[in-house]
Amino acid sequence: MTSSQEQLLIGIHAVTSALKSAAGDVQWVRIAADSKNKRLAELSSRAHGSGIEVIKTKPAELDKLSGQQRHQGVIAGFKGSNLASEGQLDAILDGIDGIPLILVLDGVQDPHNLGACLRTADAAGVHLVVICKDQSAGITPVVRRAASGAAETLKVLQATNLARVLRNLKERGIWLAGTSDEAADDLYAIDLKGPLALVMGNEGTGLRRLTTELCDYLVSIPMAGQVESLNVSVATGVCLYEINRQRHSV
Amino acid sequence: MTSSQEQLLIGIHAVTSALKSAAGDVQWVRIAADSKNKRLAELSSRAHGSGIEVIKTKPAELDKLSGQQRHQGVIAGFKGSNLASEGQLDAILDGIDGIPLILVLDGVQDPHNLGACLRTADAAGVHLVVICKDQSAGITPVVRRAASGAAETLKVLQATNLARVLRNLKERGIWLAGTSDEAADDLYAIDLKGPLALVMGNEGTGLRRLTTELCDYLVSIPMAGQVESLNVSVATGVCLYEINRQRHSV
Repeated sequence: MTSSQEQLLIGIHAVTSALKSAAGDVQWVRIAADSKNKRLAELSSRAHGSGIEVIKTKPAELDKLSGQQRHQGVIAGFKGSNLASEGQLDAILDGIDGIPLILVLDGVQDPHNLGACLRTADAAGVHLVVICKDQSAGITPVVRRAASGAAETLKVLQATNLARVLRNLKERGIWLAGTSDEAADDLYAIDLKGPLALVMGNEGTGLRRLTTELCDYLVSIPMAGQVESLNVSVATGVCLYEINRQRHSV
Repeated sequence: MTSSQEQLLIGIHAVTSALKSAAGDVQWVRIAADSKNKRLAELSSRAHGSGIEVIKTKPAELDKLSGQQRHQGVIAGFKGSNLASEGQLDAILDGIDGIPLILVLDGVQDPHNLGACLRTADAAGVHLVVICKDQSAGITPVVRRAASGAAETLKVLQATNLARVLRNLKERGIWLAGTSDEAADDLYAIDLKGPLALVMGNEGTGLRRLTTELCDYLVSIPMAGQVESLNVSVATGVCLYEINRQRHSV
């Protein structure tokens, strides 16, 4: 998937959210021709207001376009200019205002988890999320729904070679902090104020060996009870908010 | 559901997890009679080792018992002595060792979210989770799976009258900290070191009015991006881990 390729946004929430936060990327909106739904009418007028073409479409055609997804009478074409490839990394880093905060997901497989990670990254003010093109869930409609709008606005780089991207980040003076159950230091014992990429592993197996080796240090999250780990999106939130807390408490 | 009522644990992960952390509550284990699965054999020998009756059962009977759930050849009967009712609140509070940390979920609807909240609460060392009997998802097999074992071990009180439970907590000297997008103070501006119940609202509508009124103070989580809120389990993790950080940094 390149940044110029058109994607589909499916359902009222996904389309409304894109119209609010990334209207410039919405190419067209198709709405069920026979609908009396008030929310669809609002959505239609919002699209018109942004100068976006609204096409009345037969429900059967929407069913066909959306495949298995529940479309609620609306589908939009989306440019996805927030999705980047490796060649754009330097330009993205050049454009960051402030101390870089990057989230690297080394193979998050579950689309709900990936979406929740994007939502969390957006809330924490992350500048860039790096995901693996092969190892990870793609930016599918399920991911977009779980991300609550973050998948349309947050800068997401789909790496074909994650190790190369990690080396590039290091060359640019960004420290790589990996999370691992086995790390000797916990999150709260480490200074996280500098330019940083937080590296989270796969839900079941954690960080891959090469990824671990490239990290400048590893941190663990304290676990007080019976469970062995947190959900990856919860762990991401705990880490990102602790990084921000440290940065804001001078 | 009372604490004495038998519940079903369905699937290899749920049953194994209960055998590891709450074997005393496992009443019996039914295993597919024809299975050659190594993990089922391990599970069977673990149950035997704990003196639990293992019953070879026809797959068709397991299908019937589990209903829609994928059972992977194993179902267990579970007593759920970690599930409590309102009458047990005082005894639970009396039994807490250390500064009380309680999580109140005012109507979390989605079973995956409820499970992830329980998993997070266990990881953060929460002493008691209070859920609403009517407003919330129950402790279903989906919740148990998402909780990764926490639903079998963590003390969970199912309140029929949440306001009454909240008043009881206040009378016992426990402060109620509600989370709200509209709170003037953010999480990091408040002293969270004392006896505390963190109160989280419903995914869509947040805290109910009466719950809000009963809280001693409200805190917000800083939102730096486009999305309006965090997933409730992520928000729970961010708050609980900040409470623990404050408590441990003297």
